[in-house]
Amino acid sequence: MTPVSYSVNTMPKPLVLHPDRLFTADPGTRAIARRLHQSVQSLPIISPHGHTDPQWFASNANFGDPTDLLLTPDHYVFRMLYSRGIPMESLGVRPRPRGAGFESGWRDAGAEPRTAWRLFAANYHLFRGTPSRLWLDWVFAEVFGLQVCLESATADHYYDQIAAALHTPAFKPRALFERFRIEVLATTESPLDPLRHHQAISASGWHGRIISTFRPDPVVDPAFEGFVDNLSALSDLTGEDCLSYRGYLAALRQRRAFFAAHGATATDHGHPTAATADLTEREAEQLFGVVARGTAGEQDAELFRAHMLTVMAGMSLDDGLVMQIHPGSFRNHNPLVFERFGRDKGADIPTATDYVTALRPLLNRYGNKTALTIILFTLDETAYARELAPLAGHYPCLKLGPPWWFHDSPQGMRRFRQRVTETAGFYNTAGFNDDTRAFLSIPARHDVARRMDCGYLAQLVAEHRLEEWEAAELAVELAYSLAKRSYKL
Amino acid sequence: MTPVSYSVNTMPKPLVLHPDRLFTADPGTRAIARRLHQSVQSLPIISPHGHTDPQWFASNANFGDPTDLLLTPDHYVFRMLYSRGIPMESLGVRPRPRGAGFESGWRDAGAEPRTAWRLFAANYHLFRGTPSRLWLDWVFAEVFGLQVCLESATADHYYDQIAAALHTPAFKPRALFERFRIEVLATTESPLDPLRHHQAISASGWHGRIISTFRPDPVVDPAFEGFVDNLSALSDLTGEDCLSYRGYLAALRQRRAFFAAHGATATDHGHPTAATADLTEREAEQLFGVVARGTAGEQDAELFRAHMLTVMAGMSLDDGLVMQIHPGSFRNHNPLVFERFGRDKGADIPTATDYVTALRPLLNRYGNKTALTIILFTLDETAYARELAPLAGHYPCLKLGPPWWFHDSPQGMRRFRQRVTETAGFYNTAGFNDDTRAFLSIPARHDVARRMDCGYLAQLVAEHRLEEWEAAELAVELAYSLAKRSYKL
Amino acid sequence: MTPVSYSVNTMPKPLVLHPDRLFTADPGTRAIARRLHQSVQSLPIISPHGHTDPQWFASNANFGDPTDLLLTPDHYVFRMLYSRGIPMESLGVRPRPRGAGFESGWRDAGAEPRTAWRLFAANYHLFRGTPSRLWLDWVFAEVFGLQVCLESATADHYYDQIAAALHTPAFKPRALFERFRIEVLATTESPLDPLRHHQAISASGWHGRIISTFRPDPVVDPAFEGFVDNLSALSDLTGEDCLSYRGYLAALRQRRAFFAAHGATATDHGHPTAATADLTEREAEQLFGVVARGTAGEQDAELFRAHMLTVMAGMSLDDGLVMQIHPGSFRNHNPLVFERFGRDKGADIPTATDYVTALRPLLNRYGNKTALTIILFTLDETAYARELAPLAGHYPCLKLGPPWWFHDSPQGMRRFRQRVTETAGFYNTAGFNDDTRAFLSIPARHDVARRMDCGYLAQLVAEHRLEEWEAAELAVELAYSLAKRSYKL
Repeated sequence: MTPVSYSVNTMPKPLVLHPDRLFTADPGTRAIARRLHQSVQSLPIISPHGHTDPQWFASNANFGDPTDLLLTPDHYVFRMLYSRGIPMESLGVRPRPRGAGFESGWRDAGAEPRTAWRLFAANYHLFRGTPSRLWLDWVFAEVFGLQVCLESATADHYYDQIAAALHTPAFKPRALFERFRIEVLATTESPLDPLRHHQAISASGWHGRIISTFRPDPVVDPAFEGFVDNLSALSDLTGEDCLSYRGYLAALRQRRAFFAAHGATATDHGHPTAATADLTEREAEQLFGVVARGTAGEQDAELFRAHMLTVMAGMSLDDGLVMQIHPGSFRNHNPLVFERFGRDKGADIPTATDYVTALRPLLNRYGNKTALTIILFTLDETAYARELAPLAGHYPCLKLGPPWWFHDSPQGMRRFRQRVTETAGFYNTAGFNDDTRAFLSIPARHDVARRMDCGYLAQLVAEHRLEEWEAAELAVELAYSLAKRSYKL
Repeated sequence: MTPVSYSVNTMPKPLVLHPDRLFTADPGTRAIARRLHQSVQSLPIISPHGHTDPQWFASNANFGDPTDLLLTPDHYVFRMLYSRGIPMESLGVRPRPRGAGFESGWRDAGAEPRTAWRLFAANYHLFRGTPSRLWLDWVFAEVFGLQVCLESATADHYYDQIAAALHTPAFKPRALFERFRIEVLATTESPLDPLRHHQAISASGWHGRIISTFRPDPVVDPAFEGFVDNLSALSDLTGEDCLSYRGYLAALRQRRAFFAAHGATATDHGHPTAATADLTEREAEQLFGVVARGTAGEQDAELFRAHMLTVMAGMSLDDGLVMQIHPGSFRNHNPLVFERFGRDKGADIPTATDYVTALRPLLNRYGNKTALTIILFTLDETAYARELAPLAGHYPCLKLGPPWWFHDSPQGMRRFRQRVTETAGFYNTAGFNDDTRAFLSIPARHDVARRMDCGYLAQLVAEHRLEEWEAAELAVELAYSLAKRSYKL
Repeated sequence: MTPVSYSVNTMPKPLVLHPDRLFTADPGTRAIARRLHQSVQSLPIISPHGHTDPQWFASNANFGDPTDLLLTPDHYVFRMLYSRGIPMESLGVRPRPRGAGFESGWRDAGAEPRTAWRLFAANYHLFRGTPSRLWLDWVFAEVFGLQVCLESATADHYYDQIAAALHTPAFKPRALFERFRIEVLATTESPLDPLRHHQAISASGWHGRIISTFRPDPVVDPAFEGFVDNLSALSDLTGEDCLSYRGYLAALRQRRAFFAAHGATATDHGHPTAATADLTEREAEQLFGVVARGTAGEQDAELFRAHMLTVMAGMSLDDGLVMQIHPGSFRNHNPLVFERFGRDKGADIPTATDYVTALRPLLNRYGNKTALTIILFTLDETAYARELAPLAGHYPCLKLGPPWWFHDSPQGMRRFRQRVTETAGFYNTAGFNDDTRAFLSIPARHDVARRMDCGYLAQLVAEHRLEEWEAAELAVELAYSLAKRSYKL
């Protein structure tokens, strides 16, 4: 055969979101996937777990410049650039303590936003094959109407077109929320958060449903920065004496009720492991004494976190909040990056995670309660078929959350369905979470999830494991209903 | 594109077993798979490992009602329903100690069989995407001739049609055995079992080959319920003094010979881990003293089980019984369910399992013996490519058993071949096991396995890694010959 | 349907390397893969990591007989035969200590080369579905022009045709090197190796680029056979006092420089685990005292290896050598085989390997250095998506080596790309390594890798995740450029 020679074309390449993207290539399977997807693509978005900033919707101010909006807050993006030797400062990532705000401060670090954007554009090829590429291209094409690919030659065109759009009313947060057809969006806050932005949103009369999620790590994890101070703050906030175990529990209950009153339907727990424990009252009081004095060793901290998961499950039984457990991330693996830039800078690395032994104390206590919903997540895919699907396929209280973080990707989603479905079925899963800080990527992420789920269902239909009418029912469940029901939305 | 709208059809849906089910959708690959499958679909069934009740074939009595036959004994089925909040009692699962019999006792628990069946039918959608759905649909369509899908609207129709069939001679156990073209069926018994049903089958003159498997866990695992009593019973049964190590070993040898005389060709070992040990005679005697007194701690128990695997391998070298090791299940994870309903109620959860270090003492002693066959199973799929295939691809005594339990599913089978074949080849695998208590599902399970294996071979052919004539040879090996040879049947 | 009956054909079967082999069957995807592959199939081979013998190219003597060349040195091949009960001696594998040479000695063990070859041919079906089959068929067809399949009936034909070819000038090592279009080939040597063969190649004026790789395990791993003697030899070779830590480090630096002067661009480290440590100077000196006296316990040895990885990373920062880490093999798992036949006899078994905690001390010290390149390998595929891709997708110094050893196979390569790409992208991977002792298989292995990579890219194109022009750029990167750049070749 004669060698194929691909000619080098220096013209801007068209940016195309193909209507069949992410569907299996086999034409028969693709046709089924296309039909299923057409039946769910316009469903509203349920976003029951994420990390967007409620202030955006409270103030409804225009977003900043393109770099500010799309590059510097997205650790998926700048970690990849950093991994290929590009300093984070040159991308506009702010060293701390130069201000914690989203909108300001980073220019002190040196990189002009346009310069940072050009660097990003010149290295956009690094994202080939990654979900960030899919999400970004969707945002470029669908949100901003860009029609050529991002590369050095088009960097300024992109920058200008996005910057111009961001100054218009149509690109204010609430307008985008409505354009994206988001039915409900959950943010995530510390128990110490007064939820002022959520209150402001309610008070504004805007109909957008932005709810909080109760994330107690800062007052439950003795290894969290400022844990002891956080207990003081919790005392101040609640009027309870949070240096006594009893007062501490009362304060937690009070804050849960406060969150629930502001729309929260769920809690979230991001522990290093899935360990649970079920201490006696006396043991728990004693251990709390140690951790509240700030004298907890690593084992004390682990045991306290473990015990508190069981306590939280008990509180969920009382107040109905759905419990989410997100274990297995080794946070801040890179101390240099942590010292210079702080948390959430792409340096959190998954670890092997046991669930079978770890969850047993909690499950022994509450596992058979049908009124309790615990949604499990993992960064360790080996647990899908081995541990999580068998657990969720037995215990009434358990459901499985969607592929998380590094696994929130086409192949990650495919592996999840392939390894979970045969043991746990579809109805023990909890729908999709976009779990993002990148507001504009929310529809892109749901688009990927809906396409991958329809593709998976199409394969089952094509292989005659499922009738198409069943797949159509399931497509709606996976795209919309399961999340809504699982999170009581 | 206009949204596709699937109309809701409340008419009964036809139940169809598509002739191409489970084959890859690509038409070229499917055509190869179809040809390969047609060449093996009529081969007799070799069922070398399972848990059916030999009494069925001894008495040849008609089975009970549909619930009794298909729902309450199948933990794959009721665990899924339980996981979605349906009480086991309402499905007819009997709380203990209400009698151990298959045919009676459960009605005491409250649920009428027809009521339980209706509940099952109303929730049949929970099984979408699971192998239970495939097996059950096969049984419904092929065994009972049902032509509509199971759902609430058809629950009574199903119940009546199945119940009627079960009263006829054609649905007696022996008739079904013959209809299913089973060449040999292995059951599994404790060393304390007198094998009366197997003797009765032989004595009856019926030609069906039902053999036992020697499963010594009750007298080898110090953590087994009633272990010390079991040693007494073993003494009584054999005339050996099973409180001395020497007598104990002699008794085990005697029982192995007894099983072999009743057709057994294999032993089976279901330990929590794959740990093996090779103690000196003195160490072993001393340890046996501890366990025989019922004073074994957890470590003693683990070490004793570990040592006994090596002892059993030595006995297998002497008497030729094939050794099966099934490690890695955390049994009875849910104490509430265990207390109320007993063992095997869907609450056994797989755990991460090491083989490399664990098996070394046994392999150091016997690993190079070509006269020994040890068939390894796993519930931890991560071991397939990393540990099991390299071990089986080196040690003469080792073969790999088929995907087990939760992994006995289309995707589980595909992963097994994909991860094992490239290192261990096909000839270090041991064919298919249905491993079931659900007699009627045996052909369904072999059907799934044959289809998935033919599909895998078809892919190798389509990708020009294998010629079709080779794939045809292999299809027969995987469907029939490997199991027959590996288990010396 | 009528059963398909495959007729048994006893005629020799044609040996065909199909031009579309290893490409996905879907016609659309295959067409893309074919185009991509045609654009890279003629690129020169970069072989930056392997275990061929430099003496071949120094002496340029003809290879021995077929058994000697293809069977007895290839542990992939004889371990599989051994696993099915064929004694290694009967395949011509030499028990030690009968000489270490490649060309002689094994006949003492009894098996005539032709007899061994016939045994191999009669069992060639055992390799169905394995990469060895692909590599061997390529060598048979492409290198030796054989046109029928290997089986008993064709064993002598094969033997004669290969033997005849091996006596001709066209089959001398240098001629094959040129015919294979190898641009550079790295071998692997101990620091104690004087690199005479590499010097002889340079001195010969032949233009073939054969470089060494610095593999310090014999003087860095206290558990290596003869470790203390090796330190003496290192002293003799360098004039440094290698019983002092300072002299030892100086000697290592000197040998690294010597290797670099002979073309080496990389080091390689084959530790049982990925553990690293960063001891103080005093701790390191003290520990070195223990290991240099040969009194290291297992923990001392592990800690010393761990520390030395960090030391070696520091030296790499100084001298620019690329660092390769190959952890996780349990070497010589089978003591009987080790005693009789020695190392590298197919009895090395992968183990579960942690990277996240293990690599942290080294990464804390050097992880953010952009001038450092560390290429990580694994035998534990569970680490791909969970640990390795997140690490490589963050730390500037890290790249991921290709699928290694048991995973250097079509499905292994597919799993690697599927699990790594979405988090680490393509540009954090280091191209392909053939890693082989089997010289003739080098082009075959690169052929498999190029086909699998083109197939993966084709899938991304077919699923509209990548444009074809991008895939074409990536195909060149994966086949050629990434290896060249990553290894500084």
